[in-house]
Amino acid sequence: MKLVVMKFGGSSVANAEKIRHVAGRVIEKKKQGFQVVVVVSAPGDMTDDLIEMAAKVTRNPAPREMDMLLATGEQASIALLCMSLHAKGQAAISLTGPQAGIFADTDHTRARITQIQPKKVLAELAKRRIVVVAGFQGLNPNSDIATLGRGGSDLTAIALAAALKADLCEIYTDVEGVYTTDPRVVPDARKLEEISYDEMLELAGAGAQVMQGRSVEVAKKYGVVFAVRSTFSQAPGTRVHKEVRQMEDVVVSGIALDRKQAKISIVDIPDRPGVAARIFSALGKAGINVDMIIQSEASDKKNDISFTLSEGDVKKALSALRPVKKALEAKDLVANNNVGKIAVVGVGMRSHPGVASKMFQTLADAKINIQMISTSEIKISCVISRDHVDQAVRELHKAFGLDKK
Amino acid sequence: MKLVVMKFGGSSVANAEKIRHVAGRVIEKKKQGFQVVVVVSAPGDMTDDLIEMAAKVTRNPAPREMDMLLATGEQASIALLCMSLHAKGQAAISLTGPQAGIFADTDHTRARITQIQPKKVLAELAKRRIVVVAGFQGLNPNSDIATLGRGGSDLTAIALAAALKADLCEIYTDVEGVYTTDPRVVPDARKLEEISYDEMLELAGAGAQVMQGRSVEVAKKYGVVFAVRSTFSQAPGTRVHKEVRQMEDVVVSGIALDRKQAKISIVDIPDRPGVAARIFSALGKAGINVDMIIQSEASDKKNDISFTLSEGDVKKALSALRPVKKALEAKDLVANNNVGKIAVVGVGMRSHPGVASKMFQTLADAKINIQMISTSEIKISCVISRDHVDQAVRELHKAFGLDKK
Repeated sequence: MKLVVMKFGGSSVANAEKIRHVAGRVIEKKKQGFQVVVVVSAPGDMTDDLIEMAAKVTRNPAPREMDMLLATGEQASIALLCMSLHAKGQAAISLTGPQAGIFADTDHTRARITQIQPKKVLAELAKRRIVVVAGFQGLNPNSDIATLGRGGSDLTAIALAAALKADLCEIYTDVEGVYTTDPRVVPDARKLEEISYDEMLELAGAGAQVMQGRSVEVAKKYGVVFAVRSTFSQAPGTRVHKEVRQMEDVVVSGIALDRKQAKISIVDIPDRPGVAARIFSALGKAGINVDMIIQSEASDKKNDISFTLSEGDVKKALSALRPVKKALEAKDLVANNNVGKIAVVGVGMRSHPGVASKMFQTLADAKINIQMISTSEIKISCVISRDHVDQAVRELHKAFGLDKK
Repeated sequence: MKLVVMKFGGSSVANAEKIRHVAGRVIEKKKQGFQVVVVVSAPGDMTDDLIEMAAKVTRNPAPREMDMLLATGEQASIALLCMSLHAKGQAAISLTGPQAGIFADTDHTRARITQIQPKKVLAELAKRRIVVVAGFQGLNPNSDIATLGRGGSDLTAIALAAALKADLCEIYTDVEGVYTTDPRVVPDARKLEEISYDEMLELAGAGAQVMQGRSVEVAKKYGVVFAVRSTFSQAPGTRVHKEVRQMEDVVVSGIALDRKQAKISIVDIPDRPGVAARIFSALGKAGINVDMIIQSEASDKKNDISFTLSEGDVKKALSALRPVKKALEAKDLVANNNVGKIAVVGVGMRSHPGVASKMFQTLADAKINIQMISTSEIKISCVISRDHVDQAVRELHKAFGLDKK
């Protein structure tokens, strides 16, 4: 008997009507002859509501207590979904993360899954029940509940699919799948039938937030083939799996964009060894993720170093860097919030040269100035003025023929 | 070091402000040199909200899933209270019922506590932490969460106090303690300084809903002395403990009342053995708790049997009895919803005769007709017309001198 793991996000179980709809979809799958494991997130805004309750009590909640609080959201979801399955005549049982044998580390509010012992899940499947598992949570070595942080429910689904050697894993969400680019920017963006793990990772990293990169990484590591599908349509969605030869025929699979970037420059740093290490260890200690880094060529024994980061981290970064600037005797420390990032992604570009030059030419023709460039094997990213992001995406989408199948 | 168990109900932790207030009271106690274990209920209306969510999904939620859902309320409370204790600089840790070592049976939504293994609680107390335990829940033999039903958080507190051999157990609520009668009916009702377990049980059974009888029974069985106190005042409340000699000086401790009673009569039953058994086994099978029973003297080989029950059970009782009435060839089956019950309670009445006659005379003087009478060692109950309940309570309160200390 084939086994499927189906994951539904919070917006899919936001109220009773939606919960009944999800129950219906789950039962459809069961009737197709599958053993079904369902992973659900907390209903709708419940997680936000709980965070707000905590904020009213204290500004600095202890992470362990935050997890104790937040884990209740998914626990409510699994109970409600099971009730709906029962009401439709389907045998089903809910399991919290700990009950499902999901073990995590002690890094509260952003724990990693360390192990899955799905004995109880398998036993319940053997009783012909649908097993509904709380996403986003596991049991840590102190026997405490730990939550898995952003994208935690996707991670639960992928990891369970790996542990159960599931034949299929489906991530249900409120979009139809993975698109060539953001359909709000390019109306004729096309849904992709399939995409490789690496492309999906680069798209996520470049701000295409269908799924967090960490879940895709786990899927890649354990070879879990999954589909991104819509809760509210029967369309097949996008299959995500390992790269196959024929994928190389498609040079560029998608265009990613991220408007919420900022750029910080440290100007005129006397050229000494260890300068970059000094700067980025200060940022690392402050918990700031840096994206692109550019060091200008030294002229007159002075350097400029620029990097991009999330807009929300700018303040924290500037206070971490002020003492560094002073110690390095740099002339200036400048932040620019008016930038955005675009990227073309595709495994085909490995075997098809000329993608970079085509990208740069397209932007040049549109009179869009490139501020920074970064490349990986299957991605070319550019930082440009934020005002030009939408136009750049539209031009690139056309230039690489993504509107045509 | 002395150990106290403090229990706070849902209205005491209904919002952030109240949670901070409770945290303050808990810390006061800690500063008095106590080791402190706190038991809390779900915040305010959360349990009702969860029940409503379930009702929107299905009319018949499976009890196991209901427990999975409802247990989240107390879990939210313990996390929020700990956050508040931390914000006030106090070391504290939250434990779910299962984490606190509270074991229950498999009777979901109304489980009994079977055992407490407070190893974790003791270990955390030894670290000088305040331990905050979720009321109303335990782990059952299937490793599922089971809730303890009405009054479950009181029960958790009393049972933990017994298991930990606590020096003190305090039940904080929104009233100042146990009163001689309902202060809404008799404005000069007096708060009792102390009361025996048995009196408390009889008062609860007669509708004085400060606490469920089951918690008092467990306290009596394990000799747990507890106080009923107000969350919002420093008044000492009412101490509940085993009967001591001097209590007998007080003949009557309180007057209980219950307006939500009903009376059912089966009229003109041919006098045969086994009639009563037939009637009350039918009611037992329907899950109906019967309170008082009267069988009239047989005249002309015919009997009447009347009994009282909760108003809410009348419909169910009538459908259970219709076939019995037919089988017994009784003449009539009559329900009367317009009745109420009053009772005088006091351990002193064992050694002071004349309480019953004083009660009946008081009611007679007020021209209140008594429909049924029932007595126990420390209680005399009368069923009267519902319209007369308030007046009867006022007259009896005066007649037994309960307004004077």
